[in-house]
Amino acid sequence: MAPAQNVYDDPVFFEGYERLRRSRTGLNEVLEQQPALRSTLPASLAGLRILDLGCGFGDFARKARSEGARAVVGVDASCRMLERAAALTHDAAIEYRRMWVEQLDFGDERFDLVVSSLALHYVEDYAGALARIAGVLRPGGRLAFSVEHPICTALPAQQWARDSTGRPLYWPVDDYWREGKRETRWFVDGVTKHHRTVETYVMGLLRAGFALTALREPLPIEGAEAAVPELDLHRRRPPFLLLAGDRLS
Amino acid sequence: MAPAQNVYDDPVFFEGYERLRRSRTGLNEVLEQQPALRSTLPASLAGLRILDLGCGFGDFARKARSEGARAVVGVDASCRMLERAAALTHDAAIEYRRMWVEQLDFGDERFDLVVSSLALHYVEDYAGALARIAGVLRPGGRLAFSVEHPICTALPAQQWARDSTGRPLYWPVDDYWREGKRETRWFVDGVTKHHRTVETYVMGLLRAGFALTALREPLPIEGAEAAVPELDLHRRRPPFLLLAGDRLS
Repeated sequence: MAPAQNVYDDPVFFEGYERLRRSRTGLNEVLEQQPALRSTLPASLAGLRILDLGCGFGDFARKARSEGARAVVGVDASCRMLERAAALTHDAAIEYRRMWVEQLDFGDERFDLVVSSLALHYVEDYAGALARIAGVLRPGGRLAFSVEHPICTALPAQQWARDSTGRPLYWPVDDYWREGKRETRWFVDGVTKHHRTVETYVMGLLRAGFALTALREPLPIEGAEAAVPELDLHRRRPPFLLLAGDRLS
Repeated sequence: MAPAQNVYDDPVFFEGYERLRRSRTGLNEVLEQQPALRSTLPASLAGLRILDLGCGFGDFARKARSEGARAVVGVDASCRMLERAAALTHDAAIEYRRMWVEQLDFGDERFDLVVSSLALHYVEDYAGALARIAGVLRPGGRLAFSVEHPICTALPAQQWARDSTGRPLYWPVDDYWREGKRETRWFVDGVTKHHRTVETYVMGLLRAGFALTALREPLPIEGAEAAVPELDLHRRRPPFLLLAGDRLS
């Protein structure tokens, strides 16, 4: 059963998202992809078969191949993202497929590494997703993923508390244990995310048969504020949570 | 090198703390000790040699013995706490010693389980403490500990943001990555805690040679609000973080 509409296929959303990514100043570039997520992957990607869940424009797929990965399969729920990824990629060892995490199925194929960048907070059934991911990983294979930090998803507004002059005072947290849907605005109204606690993220991984290898709360890379001044706010509360684990055999 | 004054030896602090514990409505009773911390320990304590770091009045030591533990050593930095613990205990298999985590040393003695309840956020050198704890645990032995949650220790005030009528609006988070001392008020002014991120707590455990077995953000036990109405606030943001891990051999 596939989720209904994918927000990345909404034209207004896609246009805003693409502009952000093109500017190279989005959080993916300065905070999450480089170097935090990379630090949770095996030191060498040479020879690995990799699955990228929520591959977007295929940036990671191409980067992994440039680091010697044997093959990369990128899956995404958005047609538009996959069309753009295909147009940017000229590599027979990279394959893109439209697939929801809820439908993950590769027959007998097994991967050495599954990567998922800022996608699993869109997934309602986290435990089910982990079970399917474990099923497509070889024993000893690694899963590394990032999500929006539970500190940030607890309240749907996802906004700083500000004083009367607009100056950010602090980040408000409430409703931490009320897990489930959060309707928020990002380029468009009604972007649906799923809030979970840190406990749920970590214990889900352990219960799915993984040994935890890393938990990171990455900071913006040094000097990034020169290009994006508002990044200093991300030094005051964690925007992302990164987890990595090895599938026990 | 021992830390200077221990706040639990301050007469005003001790009197307030003892009154809280005697009322059986402190967070230790309804939220942290029962049943969250217990759930991170081995299912049976029978035959185990246990070290309790920050043993306070010895509640856990006596409980562990009632569950069949072979021997319990309780250490604490506060003379007053240890005097009270000794007065409450009549059991030759429970021993109390005044010791700081910074000085942990038991010669060739090794424990099967080290427990520490709401003590390690008072310790400045977390990595050093974990190295010493690993050194007194047998390979395969478990460490389980709780600390105040980083969401709560980030700002020293440790207070809800309230509206003009005093109603709690949300919990404020700021300065999350500025690890280190936080001077706060608890019965007396100037209680010094050490704020660390969730990343530091978890990665410290992995780096010290532990496999993570649990990360919990416990809620108050059901029905506890009947006795302590303000407990419902602890359902809105996590007061404690519990971690458990097994020492790899």
